[in-house]
Amino acid sequence: MQPTSRGPAPHGHVTLVQVAQRAGVSAQSVSNALNNPDRVAPETRKRILAAVEELGYEPNLSARALRNRSSSLIAFKMRPARPDKASMLMDDFLYVLNASAVDAGYHLILCHAEGGQAGEIKAYRDLLKKTSIDAFILAETHRNDDRVAALRSWGVPFAAFGRSWDGDEEMAWVDVDGRAGTRAATAHVAAQGHTQIGYIGWPAESELGEDRRAGWLDACRERSLDTDLQAAVVDSLENGRQAAHRMLDAARPATALVCASDTLALGVMRALHERGLRPGADVAITGYDDSPTAALVSPGLTTLRQPIDEVGRQLIHTVDNLMAGDPRTPQHVLLEPELIVRDSSLPGRRDTR
Amino acid sequence: MQPTSRGPAPHGHVTLVQVAQRAGVSAQSVSNALNNPDRVAPETRKRILAAVEELGYEPNLSARALRNRSSSLIAFKMRPARPDKASMLMDDFLYVLNASAVDAGYHLILCHAEGGQAGEIKAYRDLLKKTSIDAFILAETHRNDDRVAALRSWGVPFAAFGRSWDGDEEMAWVDVDGRAGTRAATAHVAAQGHTQIGYIGWPAESELGEDRRAGWLDACRERSLDTDLQAAVVDSLENGRQAAHRMLDAARPATALVCASDTLALGVMRALHERGLRPGADVAITGYDDSPTAALVSPGLTTLRQPIDEVGRQLIHTVDNLMAGDPRTPQHVLLEPELIVRDSSLPGRRDTR
Repeated sequence: MQPTSRGPAPHGHVTLVQVAQRAGVSAQSVSNALNNPDRVAPETRKRILAAVEELGYEPNLSARALRNRSSSLIAFKMRPARPDKASMLMDDFLYVLNASAVDAGYHLILCHAEGGQAGEIKAYRDLLKKTSIDAFILAETHRNDDRVAALRSWGVPFAAFGRSWDGDEEMAWVDVDGRAGTRAATAHVAAQGHTQIGYIGWPAESELGEDRRAGWLDACRERSLDTDLQAAVVDSLENGRQAAHRMLDAARPATALVCASDTLALGVMRALHERGLRPGADVAITGYDDSPTAALVSPGLTTLRQPIDEVGRQLIHTVDNLMAGDPRTPQHVLLEPELIVRDSSLPGRRDTR
Repeated sequence: MQPTSRGPAPHGHVTLVQVAQRAGVSAQSVSNALNNPDRVAPETRKRILAAVEELGYEPNLSARALRNRSSSLIAFKMRPARPDKASMLMDDFLYVLNASAVDAGYHLILCHAEGGQAGEIKAYRDLLKKTSIDAFILAETHRNDDRVAALRSWGVPFAAFGRSWDGDEEMAWVDVDGRAGTRAATAHVAAQGHTQIGYIGWPAESELGEDRRAGWLDACRERSLDTDLQAAVVDSLENGRQAAHRMLDAARPATALVCASDTLALGVMRALHERGLRPGADVAITGYDDSPTAALVSPGLTTLRQPIDEVGRQLIHTVDNLMAGDPRTPQHVLLEPELIVRDSSLPGRRDTR
């Protein structure tokens, strides 16, 4: 079917800015009129609400504000199931986010969406039409993140686990310093005497992946080490395994492999297993995310642990402030991951009992 | 502080049955009056609502019904974080449950509770006081499950992932046949020629654990095999590791170990690693739950996969029926797990490349 071009703008495509223009006020005033009516003069609020009505600015989407009561609900979209992945990061995150939300007097309501950002925005819109929602927590931010524009146009407070990769100063976020993490992992294997340190990461369109790769580059350059051994692959055990075989077959083979994820690092372990090599003793390996698997494999996998308890607490604190109309600059919090050293990166330990 | 004994029954301790007695009707009629008013004669409904008011039967807890509208919210308590565990079963379950809920026009709202069943019941009550909830999904059922009595007394529909271990015919549940699972795993290793098949499971107070242990016993007895090698330990890598060492040091040592969880099986793999033995080639190992780790370790771990997609769909279908006042007997669904065979239980494969 062709989209129709007749009639007024489709339901929901009126933006906050259009309402502001019509009412002759700033977008912030419109947002305040809807979310923090105390902060707007009654006359101004009346004019703004008239413009809202005139333009058909999604009244349902602002049901919470118009009714002037809190639903105490914070919405979060669950990650899709990923059977091949070691990481439980987003599952653990959901748990701590929920615990923090309940602590602060909120409850989490879950969204489900398929079809990328467009699907996610549709799911948010459907949810807002059905239920009043106080705030959204986003995860896995990207450049040109359409979700940000959508939530702003609806006047709904939100904060993200993941920085604004566009440098959007107005967006509140909490993130973990991936670059510092891989820099620490690389420095750790260099300290064990490794000089051929390969990197197995993700394709360049992943902002998160580029950030982690930069930390490996930093640490190698600081030590004038080769940076020839690099792979950019989609995150899977099999891709990690194949990349490891290539780097171990190179003219100057890798003696240490720093990986962007535990899943890739477990692929490296599989490759070593196939070659009869021992992780740690023969080739050092590091992963990322401290998945349960990292602690459970033999030998244990050296990896980076994200402080997700703190991420969850800070995000709930942030949206709570936003809802209260806290006038301070939106919070930007960058936390450090912790290097968890296990036997996969240590040469010393021998398997004896 | 001492609980007070003055005044009327504490808020919320009036039961559906007491309301029914006062109104001279069945408990079902009270439930219908609150949840499916069309199914009760207006006169009767009036009498019931009078009794509700007179006795102070938690009006907030039935807010949804009294307002005669659906909130479209289904509540579910998240599992606590368990850093040592391989299993993501409950996380994957939450994802599929949410997807099924959204498919059927509902949304999941998450509960958070600490302090066992009493804490969970308190969290449910707090949630019901704050928000109207259409139904609850329980998980991890036990004998004498107080949550069942609480939800019944509040007249809120619910269904459980996990059977009624008391044989409660009125409770709707969906479960997976653990006994059939370990029976299949044991038969599989027996078919590889093993006759000394040990079992590493959980303490006897776990109904789930006893069910899984029974499947190993069945398969051993059917083949007249020894059942001396048994361990009942709390689920952890370390406990699995220690139990494996004991069974490998026994007078007639185990050549195969069937485990109640992937976490225990990974402990067995750690023990073999420490002894320089090869999983599969030297000692067969099976786990339970098909955690991501099971596919990621080298060699891969043979395990049992629960059909949680189907569990999620059936549970949402069940509460949907309950809310619609479907008069049929509550659904009891027992699904079969699937044996996933990997190299940890196969003698044939050699590690060559």
